[in-house]
Amino acid sequence: MGKGRLEAFSDGVLAIIITIMVLEIKVPHGDNPEDLKPLLPIFMSYILSFIYIGIYWNNHHHLMQVVNKVSGTVLWSNIHLLFWLSLVPFATAWMGENHFSKWPVILYGFILMMAGVAYYILAHCLTSIHGKDSTLAKALGKDRKGILSVVLYIAGIIASVFIHPWVGFTLYVVVAAIWFTPDRRIEKKIENNYREEQ
Amino acid sequence: MGKGRLEAFSDGVLAIIITIMVLEIKVPHGDNPEDLKPLLPIFMSYILSFIYIGIYWNNHHHLMQVVNKVSGTVLWSNIHLLFWLSLVPFATAWMGENHFSKWPVILYGFILMMAGVAYYILAHCLTSIHGKDSTLAKALGKDRKGILSVVLYIAGIIASVFIHPWVGFTLYVVVAAIWFTPDRRIEKKIENNYREEQ
Amino acid sequence: MGKGRLEAFSDGVLAIIITIMVLEIKVPHGDNPEDLKPLLPIFMSYILSFIYIGIYWNNHHHLMQVVNKVSGTVLWSNIHLLFWLSLVPFATAWMGENHFSKWPVILYGFILMMAGVAYYILAHCLTSIHGKDSTLAKALGKDRKGILSVVLYIAGIIASVFIHPWVGFTLYVVVAAIWFTPDRRIEKKIENNYREEQ
Amino acid sequence: MGKGRLEAFSDGVLAIIITIMVLEIKVPHGDNPEDLKPLLPIFMSYILSFIYIGIYWNNHHHLMQVVNKVSGTVLWSNIHLLFWLSLVPFATAWMGENHFSKWPVILYGFILMMAGVAYYILAHCLTSIHGKDSTLAKALGKDRKGILSVVLYIAGIIASVFIHPWVGFTLYVVVAAIWFTPDRRIEKKIENNYREEQ
Repeated sequence: MGKGRLEAFSDGVLAIIITIMVLEIKVPHGDNPEDLKPLLPIFMSYILSFIYIGIYWNNHHHLMQVVNKVSGTVLWSNIHLLFWLSLVPFATAWMGENHFSKWPVILYGFILMMAGVAYYILAHCLTSIHGKDSTLAKALGKDRKGILSVVLYIAGIIASVFIHPWVGFTLYVVVAAIWFTPDRRIEKKIENNYREEQ
Repeated sequence: MGKGRLEAFSDGVLAIIITIMVLEIKVPHGDNPEDLKPLLPIFMSYILSFIYIGIYWNNHHHLMQVVNKVSGTVLWSNIHLLFWLSLVPFATAWMGENHFSKWPVILYGFILMMAGVAYYILAHCLTSIHGKDSTLAKALGKDRKGILSVVLYIAGIIASVFIHPWVGFTLYVVVAAIWFTPDRRIEKKIENNYREEQ
Repeated sequence: MGKGRLEAFSDGVLAIIITIMVLEIKVPHGDNPEDLKPLLPIFMSYILSFIYIGIYWNNHHHLMQVVNKVSGTVLWSNIHLLFWLSLVPFATAWMGENHFSKWPVILYGFILMMAGVAYYILAHCLTSIHGKDSTLAKALGKDRKGILSVVLYIAGIIASVFIHPWVGFTLYVVVAAIWFTPDRRIEKKIENNYREEQ
Repeated sequence: MGKGRLEAFSDGVLAIIITIMVLEIKVPHGDNPEDLKPLLPIFMSYILSFIYIGIYWNNHHHLMQVVNKVSGTVLWSNIHLLFWLSLVPFATAWMGENHFSKWPVILYGFILMMAGVAYYILAHCLTSIHGKDSTLAKALGKDRKGILSVVLYIAGIIASVFIHPWVGFTLYVVVAAIWFTPDRRIEKKIENNYREEQ
């Protein structure tokens, strides 16, 4: 089974998610810079979510490059990932409109965490098809980055409950910063394999 | 005539349908967990519809894999299928906002049934081009799964009218569960053909 | 210059246009069949527009099959066509909400007419690159169908002004019926060329 | 790393941006031509933005044709460009609803300027991977057109602040007119290279 349509469908869904979020930034009635001020928190949460969807697209792209085949289970793991990402616009808007208050920040973190778990599952479904000696398995290794992210999301949620939602929000930004650099592991492995072949 | 653009267009439409449904989950004004409670039925219907569109994409993917050519009639059968699926976000929102009351559940079932019929028509248009001995025709066989689904949708609609909408809803979930496993028939046939060729 | 991205971009825009129209069918508050009644004219105009966008996608698909190259002018002719089609959801909603009254029906016809003209321009830009002896030029011939459509749209607009909008609406349905059959001219030409080559 | 998915994702995002802008043209309640009058400025800003997104798609298309490989940095430069373009629908709606008053016109110009800068960065990231002797580097040259655009946007913003927003708006139209012609530099270079090879 080819990976072409899985990529096309994922690109489509991610492109729509990243774009419809802008519909939540409602156009203000006044035409002064002050009329834009109330939109500032909404805009901030928009930026973070834009970067997050960008990260997922980027890593999805990298992941799929070392994939040769997909199965029914992989298709569903991918839809599962898209499901959690599809809730990002809702959580973004709720968080932005409530100026990063406690529960919206917790929900935002929860959805990111579930997306992180879903990505982990997808990566491991793919590894199990390709075998332990595949480029994919070697590139992912123990997937410390994936596990670390989920741990940081949980820490962020707990911090939002017991300390302050801004601590949680900061932790989500930290995870984004960690992933901002595209998965160099995969890029390196592709290069190495390429060299070995020659 | 190639199948590339039919796949691309279908992927696009399905990606948009699955994603715009989230726009119906309106962001609540309050920022407490209780403010999310009224969204629960809307969210439940969102999940079911997300899975349904996922199933259609998945099966469409499987179906197209054993297709070599398309005709004008196939293009229109496909647009007909997309038409009924395009109404899913509307029916989902109506059902969710009315807490799974009688008529919305009936409409939801009716639209799913029509999508099921449209998929059946599409599959049979494709079979008639490819001939009885094609991999496609063998894989689909008598299409018992497709016929069973339509029968269960009708049963769900009748149950919603005369017994209770939750009975109907449960039957729709049963159909989703039946289809959740991607069409193994096609996967098996591809494998078998591949083996026979070698 | 390849035609791949032109097709991909057009598929994307057409897929979005055909799908976002459903967002104009606002979910009613009540949960009875009577609550759906006011949506009937909106739904009727939705169906017609869905078919129209389907026709444009279908013919665009057929047209591009006999195209080997595109130029900057072709790219802009295509964007020009997409511009008029992008206004279809607006005109559809205005016409549906006003129960097919005079001016909305006129605007709807005007936008369809401009889309028809834009398609004509696109087809002729393509012909001028491919030359008079190309499969494309032969398949299109004098493009009587394209000219007839524009004439019928103008007739529909005039009829809406002086007789009754339903006469205009009926003429738009007639044009849709004419185009419903995908452009057999192109399909035939492809077949013939294929035979001649053998 | 291939450029296929970068093109697909960009096509998707640009197709959605260009299409959802139409959702900001709210359907009026009345059914007379006068009811459309208040939409005129909104429609005017829609046309300009449609052309701008068309220009970006067109130039992106041309740019990618002379690109052989992409890197992680390129992927992010591209997402950065899409970020600024994703704000175009918001700025378009604000400008249209406020009849091209001062601050909305400034914001619109600012977002166009940032998109121009982002495109410049993307082009130069690509050049740095491909080397100074690549077709890409030769085609772009000193990128005078890109620099001129940014200068004109800044001039438009300053003019909107100190003279009148219509002066600013006119300058944005001038930039659009400059770019309307697709990047002939690249088309020429491709032709030349092709000839030299033969």
